[in-house]
Amino acid sequence: MSFTVRDAFWNKYRTLVADVMLPYEYDALNNSLADASIEKSHSLENIRIAAGESEEEFRGLVFQDSDTAKWLEAVAYSLLYKPNADLEKKADEVIRLIGKAQDEDGYFNTYFKLNRPQSRFTNLLEAHELYCAGHLIEAGVAYFEGTGKRTLLDISRRFADLLYRIFLTEGKKGVPGHPEIELALVRLYRATGEKNYLDLAKHFIDERGTDPDFFVKEAAARDWNVWTPNPKDTDYLQATRPVREEENAVGHAVRAAYLYTGMAMTAHETGDETLLAACKRMWRSIVDRRMYVTGGIGSTAVGEAFTADYDLPNDTNYCETCAAIALIFFAREMATMTNDAEYADVMERALYNNVLASFQQDGTHFFYVNPLEVDPALAGKIPLLRHVFPSRPGWHACACCPPNAARLLSSIDRYAFHESEGVLYADLFLGGTYDSATAALTVESALPRSGEVTCTLTRGADITLAVRIPSWSKRTVIRRNGEECVPTMQKGYALLNNLNAGDAIAITFDMTPRKIYANPKVAADFGKCAVSVGPRVFCFEDVDQSAPLEGACLKRGGALRLVQSDAGDHGGFYVRAEGTMSQSCDGLYSYHAPDEQPCELIAVPYHIWGNRGLGRMKVWLPER
Amino acid sequence: MSFTVRDAFWNKYRTLVADVMLPYEYDALNNSLADASIEKSHSLENIRIAAGESEEEFRGLVFQDSDTAKWLEAVAYSLLYKPNADLEKKADEVIRLIGKAQDEDGYFNTYFKLNRPQSRFTNLLEAHELYCAGHLIEAGVAYFEGTGKRTLLDISRRFADLLYRIFLTEGKKGVPGHPEIELALVRLYRATGEKNYLDLAKHFIDERGTDPDFFVKEAAARDWNVWTPNPKDTDYLQATRPVREEENAVGHAVRAAYLYTGMAMTAHETGDETLLAACKRMWRSIVDRRMYVTGGIGSTAVGEAFTADYDLPNDTNYCETCAAIALIFFAREMATMTNDAEYADVMERALYNNVLASFQQDGTHFFYVNPLEVDPALAGKIPLLRHVFPSRPGWHACACCPPNAARLLSSIDRYAFHESEGVLYADLFLGGTYDSATAALTVESALPRSGEVTCTLTRGADITLAVRIPSWSKRTVIRRNGEECVPTMQKGYALLNNLNAGDAIAITFDMTPRKIYANPKVAADFGKCAVSVGPRVFCFEDVDQSAPLEGACLKRGGALRLVQSDAGDHGGFYVRAEGTMSQSCDGLYSYHAPDEQPCELIAVPYHIWGNRGLGRMKVWLPER
Repeated sequence: MSFTVRDAFWNKYRTLVADVMLPYEYDALNNSLADASIEKSHSLENIRIAAGESEEEFRGLVFQDSDTAKWLEAVAYSLLYKPNADLEKKADEVIRLIGKAQDEDGYFNTYFKLNRPQSRFTNLLEAHELYCAGHLIEAGVAYFEGTGKRTLLDISRRFADLLYRIFLTEGKKGVPGHPEIELALVRLYRATGEKNYLDLAKHFIDERGTDPDFFVKEAAARDWNVWTPNPKDTDYLQATRPVREEENAVGHAVRAAYLYTGMAMTAHETGDETLLAACKRMWRSIVDRRMYVTGGIGSTAVGEAFTADYDLPNDTNYCETCAAIALIFFAREMATMTNDAEYADVMERALYNNVLASFQQDGTHFFYVNPLEVDPALAGKIPLLRHVFPSRPGWHACACCPPNAARLLSSIDRYAFHESEGVLYADLFLGGTYDSATAALTVESALPRSGEVTCTLTRGADITLAVRIPSWSKRTVIRRNGEECVPTMQKGYALLNNLNAGDAIAITFDMTPRKIYANPKVAADFGKCAVSVGPRVFCFEDVDQSAPLEGACLKRGGALRLVQSDAGDHGGFYVRAEGTMSQSCDGLYSYHAPDEQPCELIAVPYHIWGNRGLGRMKVWLPER
Repeated sequence: MSFTVRDAFWNKYRTLVADVMLPYEYDALNNSLADASIEKSHSLENIRIAAGESEEEFRGLVFQDSDTAKWLEAVAYSLLYKPNADLEKKADEVIRLIGKAQDEDGYFNTYFKLNRPQSRFTNLLEAHELYCAGHLIEAGVAYFEGTGKRTLLDISRRFADLLYRIFLTEGKKGVPGHPEIELALVRLYRATGEKNYLDLAKHFIDERGTDPDFFVKEAAARDWNVWTPNPKDTDYLQATRPVREEENAVGHAVRAAYLYTGMAMTAHETGDETLLAACKRMWRSIVDRRMYVTGGIGSTAVGEAFTADYDLPNDTNYCETCAAIALIFFAREMATMTNDAEYADVMERALYNNVLASFQQDGTHFFYVNPLEVDPALAGKIPLLRHVFPSRPGWHACACCPPNAARLLSSIDRYAFHESEGVLYADLFLGGTYDSATAALTVESALPRSGEVTCTLTRGADITLAVRIPSWSKRTVIRRNGEECVPTMQKGYALLNNLNAGDAIAITFDMTPRKIYANPKVAADFGKCAVSVGPRVFCFEDVDQSAPLEGACLKRGGALRLVQSDAGDHGGFYVRAEGTMSQSCDGLYSYHAPDEQPCELIAVPYHIWGNRGLGRMKVWLPER
């Protein structure tokens, strides 16, 4: 099964990734960016040192290897749609170095090899050893799928075999402080059919939280730390109780969502109902109580973590790019396992909003934290906003996000459809061609600028196409070979049965701009609303308004007018909203409401914010 | 000059302080509270150890002495209006111990005496040595004024003389990390006429910030720390530049306001115009851009500090009780120096709101942090609200605030009037009798429940009474011997000239409930309003509403109805406001505005919040 993207909106991003982002990220990983003021990665140099081809010292964070692994994964995907001999040569060379640096027994981790060769697996709490192993394995699987080359897959398997021996054969205790290995092992199982890998994934999931003191004992048994860890903060570590007993999504948001993805994949492969039930509980906890309207997760910078139900501050939030990506992985797996449309709904929300906002339109600047409200006078300056950048930097000391965005966008074709028991589920409406043993079809899509999507079956007989009806489309019209029809709905999908080659399904989604309201329990959004068009949440930026954004209110019941223009300044696609602007005054407090003038407020897609200079940005505005 | 309070509202609090709060605080300082679960102070035990009358070890924080000093100061004031032989005996005994513990050369500090006798004045950065000295000096002055007993004053003078020798005669470098000594030394100068004390205060002020690296060098020269200080954070320390060159109120809010008070007192005594100009700049920075509507200051728990202009979050704020008290000290000194009513306006705001809210109506529970919005599901639980208590504890590990509130309330008579060049300035409208060389008068006041205030001159001829017209009174009616008059206004005071014994000035302030709006630049309050009656800001508590407070909105233009009842449940004085309640819904986001029902919302004075069990509280509500 494959999907080839041919889509004006997505091709632009995928070309950007292949032609600009991945070469730029190589230079970043290679410390060869022209601009010396940008944060250095050291990731490739560490691998060269470990391979014996450099005499430098290990530098950067303990998990620096994983950035290169994600880059390799992204290159593998990009080569499938945009062959690039130079990029492939660079990737092959990196893989050669990794192979040379790999220890005899299969172990690979430059931090440990160069700094603590005797301390392997003694600091699962914070040394990210299994996390890096997971990313190496994902890269190995992807590079094989993308290029047919086995070298990195074989490296990965040797490492995974070592892990199996240590944690299952020899029975070493412990689970990763930062989950990721679980989902990687299931991917490796799916790619190779080797059941040991699935068993090891299941082992890490089953073990987790069974001994809440594990990390405390582990820390007591060693005489070194990477940072100043708190092994007792088991909520942060998702290890307070066994995963099947957890009620809420807690702790570090990226770790949580990678863990839940691994749980979902394992449940999917094993049919484990209690594990599936746990996944559904975590999903409800996130989606019903702990997720931003942009699909972001992680309400606080302290531990980059979830906090409490309905605590969703818009300025001090974290919403790490990696966390939204991890939520997409989780959603994708739940979607394919349950065939319930609500999963793809969230996948789409996180993709079009949090993930696309995470990089500059130039492809070479990246957010780590994705706020929903920014004031450049405060962001990065006051204590609670130290973690917030008001504009995207060229790289980060901790640069997990940029290659993560690259690997998601370069593999976005994998999220368009899924097939289950012969039914084709249309999850994201990317233009392109779908091809599987069951059927082939072409999709023409005008999304997200316009709501027309047509799926034409080019091969297949008696096919059922399940079209997700997104929550954002107020009224969706479906025509079968020109005739409007009212299909049966099943878990949010419209079922179109008995399709044969040549049949065309034309769908018109409702792209009328709509206001979004949060549950009043979300104190940060109460009395406010946001604007959206289709899957995209919009935001208000200073640059588009007639007066400083601080004074902007939307009018209750006021019109929202969608404008599509050729002007590039707003991305050519924006909303004019009726509102008011309040005048600033002297001093702080007054017995008179600030002077207000009716005005037109302009909202642009959230994901293009911060591309036109520094300024205030808000997703939610007061409405009255 | 003296003022004797006879006032229904204030007598209740002053009796509470004398009869309940001060005996309770003695027990807290003495580790003799009945409830063993309450935080221990150790303050008195430390003094006993230092006096050689206990064999225990020093416990508690480095500045624990200062809690006892503030308690002594409060006792001194209370004895003036509520003689209490038991309390006085306890205070005398504490003073005996302090005298016995004082070193030969005049030094007194139990932390240093017991732990680091060789390290005096080597950690001005964080050891609070001069801060504790300042509170001892204030206590010495107050105890002399309150009881006529000189023992503690003499102890204080010996210590102050030692400080003069060290820092001026011997020229030791350095300024206090935590200002307080400056204002204390000017008080000591005023009480004794000894100019050395004023000179030393001026020295600390003039030295401050002249060497921004002072604290770095100091830290490098010693081999111990109290915590893990950052001597480079000179903004936190108000030492980035000389105080006369500073543009903004920065750093730790209590330290800042104590420093500015010391600057104002020094400027007042020396006529230093550049110092007065600096005080006015700091005032404008606070009052125009960095102060809460409750008179609280300190926008963040990180450093308990100011942050940036208009950054006034209502939930993550600090608004330490001590900071509001320090702001009152600063305001009081500026008022007496400049005869400008705006200072007393702020004094009144901080007093009736932040300070009165800081203790439970039972007199035995205290806030350190005073939020303007609390959700018990989050306060004290999520990372950014770890510092917020949803209800007042019985004591605190760091208990600077409870005795500070006691000393302010027990000396509130000193804030009612000030005299300048023969003019009597009525600053706060407390009922009672004023007596000075110039004149005597009686004040009857119905504030803050009702707006009638009458001042009757009982002695004096050709007197000018300057009545502050508060910013909260929309229309103030003044009658002179029954005849309405329109006095000349001068810097916010109405001037009533040529008064002779027997003349009565009846003032009617407008107590109509009013809505308050913040400058739109205050993002946290934008689209919202607060309710006030007279000097008091009101708040909304869950317990008074028909539905959970999370859904409450005020109606733009809606009526506010003041209710005075005998029912004690609301304090008998509350506001009914037209508003709406939004219904909570399932899930997080919706394309429909939450269902709203018109309703009456009930607001009570902010200072009584949290006296009726745990619940949500908000000062600012969205308005539409």
